Amino acid sequence: MTSALDQSNAQSGRIVISVDAMGGDQGPAAVVAGISSSAQINPDIAFILHGPKDELKRLVARKKNLAGRCELRDARDVVQMTDKPSQIMRQGKDTSMWSAIESVRNGEATVCVSCGNTGALMLMSVVRLRKLPGIYRPAIAVLWPSQNPQNFNIMLDGGADIRADAKDLMQYALMGTSYARNGFGLERPRVGLLNVGTEEHKGRSELKEAYDLIAANAHNADFDFVGFVEGRDLPGTTCDVIVTDGFTGNVALKTGEGTAGLISTLLREAFKYSPLSRLASVLAYTSLQRLKKRVDPRRANGGVFLGLNGTVVKSHGAADATGVSAAVKLAYQLAETGFTEKLAARVASASLLEQDGPTEISNDGETE
Amino acid sequence: MTSALDQSNAQSGRIVISVDAMGGDQGPAAVVAGISSSAQINPDIAFILHGPKDELKRLVARKKNLAGRCELRDARDVVQMTDKPSQIMRQGKDTSMWSAIESVRNGEATVCVSCGNTGALMLMSVVRLRKLPGIYRPAIAVLWPSQNPQNFNIMLDGGADIRADAKDLMQYALMGTSYARNGFGLERPRVGLLNVGTEEHKGRSELKEAYDLIAANAHNADFDFVGFVEGRDLPGTTCDVIVTDGFTGNVALKTGEGTAGLISTLLREAFKYSPLSRLASVLAYTSLQRLKKRVDPRRANGGVFLGLNGTVVKSHGAADATGVSAAVKLAYQLAETGFTEKLAARVASASLLEQDGPTEISNDGETE
Repeated sequence: MTSALDQSNAQSGRIVISVDAMGGDQGPAAVVAGISSSAQINPDIAFILHGPKDELKRLVARKKNLAGRCELRDARDVVQMTDKPSQIMRQGKDTSMWSAIESVRNGEATVCVSCGNTGALMLMSVVRLRKLPGIYRPAIAVLWPSQNPQNFNIMLDGGADIRADAKDLMQYALMGTSYARNGFGLERPRVGLLNVGTEEHKGRSELKEAYDLIAANAHNADFDFVGFVEGRDLPGTTCDVIVTDGFTGNVALKTGEGTAGLISTLLREAFKYSPLSRLASVLAYTSLQRLKKRVDPRRANGGVFLGLNGTVVKSHGAADATGVSAAVKLAYQLAETGFTEKLAARVASASLLEQDGPTEISNDGETE
Repeated sequence: MTSALDQSNAQSGRIVISVDAMGGDQGPAAVVAGISSSAQINPDIAFILHGPKDELKRLVARKKNLAGRCELRDARDVVQMTDKPSQIMRQGKDTSMWSAIESVRNGEATVCVSCGNTGALMLMSVVRLRKLPGIYRPAIAVLWPSQNPQNFNIMLDGGADIRADAKDLMQYALMGTSYARNGFGLERPRVGLLNVGTEEHKGRSELKEAYDLIAANAHNADFDFVGFVEGRDLPGTTCDVIVTDGFTGNVALKTGEGTAGLISTLLREAFKYSPLSRLASVLAYTSLQRLKKRVDPRRANGGVFLGLNGTVVKSHGAADATGVSAAVKLAYQLAETGFTEKLAARVASASLLEQDGPTEISNDGETE
């Protein structure tokens, strides 16, 4: 199905992002506002938007800058947050999420963005896009605010799968490295393996195996392996990419969110305490806004699904226009750098490497 | 060995805490300052202090309020942070840590406090105090700042052992409940089991087994089981006790510390940004101090080793006098309530229960 709009986008050289308008807590209006703000900033972007056509038509018509840059695809159903995997695969074909993934599958769009149910999005992505050859477990890569120059660290797996063996963790290292290179422009990312201590004798035995496997691939895959890292290194500066299984990653992610939330609540309470502290809060306003912007989860919005034939960005379910726009920006960056193809090539070359067996144990990246 | 001082303490009805003066980053002076500040506040406390006698004698002599309330035990060696388990068991007998545990073992003191190497402290505690009958894996219970009325939640295991099966997790629930009751005066603590989602179908299979086992014991052990909880509930208000394996617990703990540290650094930077923001920081000083006090890790200092014949409190290695004093306060509270005996009774009754088989599946504590 190639419409006049498709052709116009193709002719303009614009990068097309497929966006699921539904499934977010704030409804399609927030999604349309988000893509409109992205379109405002970036002239090289165009959209295919999926959802109930009449409603979307009204919302898009109000945004002048989307005229001629946003094609609509009608989809009547919406994946609910409570939907179970079996339901989704039986009844999911008419949903906006399915339709959004389909646009990546058939090559109309480069990256798909959705605010919907994570489990459903991963399941549909795996079924429709298929895993890259050699990948057993796809992963979700998430961003952590950090003090590294790029302002963020990458952690994977953020919860696509609750298990990961040594080989999976090695593949996460490769995929995370590729993401860091294409998303942040880091030439030689530093990779750490999450454990309960940095000493080599600590932790679970499968982690020791993963340690050796990652170290063996570091040289050829062009990253620095810093060895075992701890929870405090997730927002730290020891490395750029942190590799762990999805269970641990998901717990860590939500612990970090919860801790930041608690501090933010207590900070508000502290400033409400007395008339003087309320005055201080007025004067401190811009300082606090500066901090808020720096750790604003909306600006680090977008878990990237890695290991599939196509790139899918999962935006936070609660994302507002700013959050959606951040996810779209990430999607654009990954599309622009040809991330999907580069990642596939990286994984393929490692599979070859593995067939040959690692010829060299390289752990030259021990940085502290 | 019963000295005149022991008798005087026994006569005074004071509770005796055994304190390892060595092994902390800040040396014995910080430890002596900490116990002195505890002695100042609490007339019902006395100490046995372990370390190089001459040095300790000088330090204690400077603190008038420790006169007649602090007995010294000479120990020449110190466990180093880098010591490995094998070294410790071969060469550990002359250390201050060993000596401090020995005072609990022979009944001179009720609780032991140490700032030293966690692994060494746990190993020596297990070897010298022995595990409670029926306990396979002892655990470290740590405190999380939270918005619950008691200001803290309890998480275990904080890293004593990297594995835990369903039965271990059930015992952690019992031990954590006992700690919450004796440490915080909570009559009916709410217990949650850490997972990647709150839905019953999520997570690892051993967690589902643990879920059933904990639910089956909730009624008889007098706690409310709220079911699965997530990382964000660690600093949250959903429950008072969070149960997890030591690997996940350790990663979560360090992730929380790291996140709090990042926000604190960024907050300082935000206030340094301009002359106006520096002025605001002066006015906001007391508000920020209020916040700092609330989440100050020194005030939540003390990981409690549970599941042994005797109670051991692990203070943070970097603890200063305030931190040591907080750990001593916790030790005193646990000693005063007869925690060791109550915990042993609780575990014994659950073992009996288990022999009979649970007769009733009780999950009446589903609160939200």
